[in-house]
Amino acid sequence: MALKQNVEQALEPTIGVGGLPRAAFEAGLAGATSALRRLREDLETGRLALLQLPGSESDLAEIEAAAAGLKQGASDIVLLGTGGSSLGGQTLAQLADWNVPGLGRLAEGPRLHFMDNLDPITFARLLERLPLPDTRFVAISKSGGTGETLMQAMAVLSALDRAGLRGRAGELLLGLSEPRKPNGRNALRDLLEPEGVRFLEHHTGVGGRYSALTNVGLLPAAILGLDIRAIRSGAAEALAPIRAGASVNDTPAAVGAALAIAAALEQRGIHVMMAYADRLERLTRWWVQLWAESLGKDGRGSQPVAAIGPVDQHSQLQLYLAGPNDKVFTVVTTGVAGEGPAIDPELARRAGEPGFAGRHIGDLVAAQGRATADTLARNRRPVRRIEVDSLDARTMGELMMHFMLETILTGYGIGVDPFDQPAVEEGKILAKQYLAESRA
Amino acid sequence: MALKQNVEQALEPTIGVGGLPRAAFEAGLAGATSALRRLREDLETGRLALLQLPGSESDLAEIEAAAAGLKQGASDIVLLGTGGSSLGGQTLAQLADWNVPGLGRLAEGPRLHFMDNLDPITFARLLERLPLPDTRFVAISKSGGTGETLMQAMAVLSALDRAGLRGRAGELLLGLSEPRKPNGRNALRDLLEPEGVRFLEHHTGVGGRYSALTNVGLLPAAILGLDIRAIRSGAAEALAPIRAGASVNDTPAAVGAALAIAAALEQRGIHVMMAYADRLERLTRWWVQLWAESLGKDGRGSQPVAAIGPVDQHSQLQLYLAGPNDKVFTVVTTGVAGEGPAIDPELARRAGEPGFAGRHIGDLVAAQGRATADTLARNRRPVRRIEVDSLDARTMGELMMHFMLETILTGYGIGVDPFDQPAVEEGKILAKQYLAESRA
Repeated sequence: MALKQNVEQALEPTIGVGGLPRAAFEAGLAGATSALRRLREDLETGRLALLQLPGSESDLAEIEAAAAGLKQGASDIVLLGTGGSSLGGQTLAQLADWNVPGLGRLAEGPRLHFMDNLDPITFARLLERLPLPDTRFVAISKSGGTGETLMQAMAVLSALDRAGLRGRAGELLLGLSEPRKPNGRNALRDLLEPEGVRFLEHHTGVGGRYSALTNVGLLPAAILGLDIRAIRSGAAEALAPIRAGASVNDTPAAVGAALAIAAALEQRGIHVMMAYADRLERLTRWWVQLWAESLGKDGRGSQPVAAIGPVDQHSQLQLYLAGPNDKVFTVVTTGVAGEGPAIDPELARRAGEPGFAGRHIGDLVAAQGRATADTLARNRRPVRRIEVDSLDARTMGELMMHFMLETILTGYGIGVDPFDQPAVEEGKILAKQYLAESRA
Repeated sequence: MALKQNVEQALEPTIGVGGLPRAAFEAGLAGATSALRRLREDLETGRLALLQLPGSESDLAEIEAAAAGLKQGASDIVLLGTGGSSLGGQTLAQLADWNVPGLGRLAEGPRLHFMDNLDPITFARLLERLPLPDTRFVAISKSGGTGETLMQAMAVLSALDRAGLRGRAGELLLGLSEPRKPNGRNALRDLLEPEGVRFLEHHTGVGGRYSALTNVGLLPAAILGLDIRAIRSGAAEALAPIRAGASVNDTPAAVGAALAIAAALEQRGIHVMMAYADRLERLTRWWVQLWAESLGKDGRGSQPVAAIGPVDQHSQLQLYLAGPNDKVFTVVTTGVAGEGPAIDPELARRAGEPGFAGRHIGDLVAAQGRATADTLARNRRPVRRIEVDSLDARTMGELMMHFMLETILTGYGIGVDPFDQPAVEEGKILAKQYLAESRA
């Protein structure tokens, strides 16, 4: 296991009043024990399909073949899909420099465009600027009925039509959706199949925000040349203690859930994840959806907040240290000491920073990650530390599976269903009504 | 004034229990009245330099000249600077498609790289991949002492040295920092001036997170060809009611502050800004720093949360609607009805979405923004609406000045100094100590 977790600095006995009281953490561990028992049953009975993915490889060849097909002759590959249909793929793609701040535009390989938000100006400009004959589109929606994705897919077909490329739609587009239901309706298939577009099957038992380890997340990863087998085997490591029947204390995801359950008992309404690596920025955004949508129901759930270091020391740390003590923190670091450019001693001296001489940029970042966690704890803010030695496909798979397990266990522990999202239908219906009323 | 604000859906008389009680809002208005009086004194006495910027033009020619100089022969321009030295520029740059999700890699003009985070792997790869002879670097730090920016600048000098380009440092680099203090120390100037690097002067009276309207934010905007005069004149519109001595109710920033003060009185610890436009994504991040660092002190301040729509309907709305009712919401929309690709009626019918036929993508986005605000209000979550007709340099200047004024007024109203950030020094000192200890 690459992931190392330490919750000591979250607890009152270690950091004093302001930390989570021992009794609350004990109650959290008790809740996590029941939750873990239930999850182990999910695993043994096979009723939670997500748990069957880690370590399995039977579907990977198909994903790799689809990726190779899409890349052939492609300068650009556009992923249409919103929310959970996009964030898992983005998280993995960032390992290959996709959307790494400052570096993303210099990334190698085909340009990947995740169109997860619907914006009329962006989408119009995109269709104007893309070299359409060399662009491939992948439209992803589990149910096939996601309005944003449907509109985008329709606009793409019309753009291909105008460019005289509609006859090539079967070659330029790929769909990813569930098989047609018994009633025969799947809007995305109904739209695209008549154009000759092929479909990969969306796993019927793994929903949007948990889909990173299915073809939804692994297809973009494979396009960028990431080792999707390593992602799955990393995920298996996070699941291993549960598979082996380990105790709560020997199961990192369960200890994390115990902390979250304790935080809920203590009315801590905000959970901050601060990761010290550019390539974990999307992980924090992916986790925000995972946490918010899985746990925010029945008046429960905490507000997830994403931050990355060191930059957010300059933007949010003031609030974390001196604002209300109503948060719990997770600080994620990677083993970057010794990494990156080394500082010329003469230049360091000239700038009056002799401490920088001969040090690597990674040394400062490592020191800052540690200092931020310790400073939070010294100011009696509860902090959990998560460390991985280095960041690669395997550790990313482990991190993602860890947080999915922790979220499910927390949902079981606080008594909400971590798999549904009942509240958002009302807004969707109202939006369709407003759209109809706005007709001229 | 382009900005339209409506707070009715935040109040209990409109949306029922769960909204902010009338009495709390009245107290907020009273607090905002005193705060507004103080701000007007700041304006009249000239003691708050930020208030002198809107509408003024005397420094703009110098910024435009610097931008033109940097662009000459440049394929890439790298901005070194963290936190407030970067986010304002990013917010403006996004108007010119910089970092617009999915579209950013196809943006025109020189590639701008904002290196606001320090990451050793990113920075090493960046220096390897940049065409160094055609790259320009701008190093920004108000005090000149920001560790992250210094390390990056040192690494750049060493990279130029290795590439045989150090003799051109005066042409390839530009500094932006305060004038040297009486004691003669300014680490960034000490580092770069001996290389022949020229400096623009950082305004001594406008700190990092309020610097968007100074050369710090306007230089990147000018590089991308944005109309920086329009940005300043938009800012002047946000300030106009204060300059004219308007009442609290006729001053949008003061009404916004009244709402925030009322939220503080009601112990609402979370403030969500959800903007319905790709080009407002950085505005929400910039605002997170502005809000958190200005107000998070003395145990006060609320957690700012950034979201963009429609995508975050799929990631956070479940929590907002059905989680704890401990938030206030600001929904920002722009006039996008009728914008973007129109949907082919035949395709809409085929997908079983006849309501989409002939509609534009912007119609759906407009309907979604309105529906989200209304759905929040129907679920008795307090919502403020902000609308601008269209998004351009002028309206962006107005939005940014609006939120700066609102933040300052809120600080005055809740009794914290909105201009300092005293809590973060402890972590910086500890990081330097750990850096020293880590020496082999």
